[in-house]
Amino acid sequence: MRQRATRQQIVAAADDLFYRQGFEHTSFADIAKVVNISRGNFYHHFKTKDDILDAVIKNRLGKTQQLLVDWEVEGATPKDRIKSYIRILLTNWTMIRDYGCPVGTLCTELAKLNHTSKNEANKVFTLFRVWLRHQFCLLGHTDNAGALAMQVLSWSQGVATLGNAFSDFNYVKQEVDKMCDWLDSLPVGTA
Amino acid sequence: MRQRATRQQIVAAADDLFYRQGFEHTSFADIAKVVNISRGNFYHHFKTKDDILDAVIKNRLGKTQQLLVDWEVEGATPKDRIKSYIRILLTNWTMIRDYGCPVGTLCTELAKLNHTSKNEANKVFTLFRVWLRHQFCLLGHTDNAGALAMQVLSWSQGVATLGNAFSDFNYVKQEVDKMCDWLDSLPVGTA
Repeated sequence: MRQRATRQQIVAAADDLFYRQGFEHTSFADIAKVVNISRGNFYHHFKTKDDILDAVIKNRLGKTQQLLVDWEVEGATPKDRIKSYIRILLTNWTMIRDYGCPVGTLCTELAKLNHTSKNEANKVFTLFRVWLRHQFCLLGHTDNAGALAMQVLSWSQGVATLGNAFSDFNYVKQEVDKMCDWLDSLPVGTA
Repeated sequence: MRQRATRQQIVAAADDLFYRQGFEHTSFADIAKVVNISRGNFYHHFKTKDDILDAVIKNRLGKTQQLLVDWEVEGATPKDRIKSYIRILLTNWTMIRDYGCPVGTLCTELAKLNHTSKNEANKVFTLFRVWLRHQFCLLGHTDNAGALAMQVLSWSQGVATLGNAFSDFNYVKQEVDKMCDWLDSLPVGTA
């Protein structure tokens, strides 16, 4: 049980550090320091940083799936649920301002490293994409649900990148309002 | 003269490597290997990687300014010029597919590192932003030229991030067409 808790602590610490300072910039020592364990204990759980990355991505995939289930339960309508996605930009604003979007920035970092885990990391995008597409299908947009899902993902990514670069909360807030207005004004699809 | 040429070679090599594999992942040795110079000669020009980064950003700012001048000369109308910006997504597609947008990815990497040069790097975005705003002003959108400029920047960033993650040229092509159609269909502003 204790071993399992330590492993989870390592993954949580690595997840946070990979996000806040980047995968490449984070060392074993950085992670061990947060978890406060010996190098020996650390190696018992993970032999390489790539092993930790795999565990972090798996953890993010699990957390994302849970988040989507939560939104499914909380949101009375598909539009409410899509708005939950859009509003991450506000919910996580201070983190986005300082470190960008955790999904987009990990994907581009791993793309540059041509890392073997880049396709796994991209699956977090795919989870959101498939879920958004499903919500647009429920709204009756069966013909273009995929394109609408990509539009929401892309809009959100662009706003996260520029919100981060310009540290501009008002801009992000206005864009979130525009996205919600756009969603509300979408013509009803024909299911 | 030769010293100056070597310096420029170092900056060009570093610019390329910072883009393709990230700033953090690129070492002095990586850059020296490309330029094929001794460590001593290298240190004659740059003492730290941060010094090289400053020179790379300065170089990018200069290249961006030149690019904007070129577009200004080549494009008969402000719409033509804005389309030159939009079409970077196609012109640089294979690079974006493999490494993302050079501007956005450097900004987010430096934000994560909380690097002292992050504001300098963000100025590349600002150059595009101010130039786009000027083009929209010329189109008569004096009231919302700034918002329209941000919309083009943001749309382009979102498409670059998702085009990179999903390695999907058709998606990028469709988005570029949509952006150009959107631009053409903008109601005429009242200057």
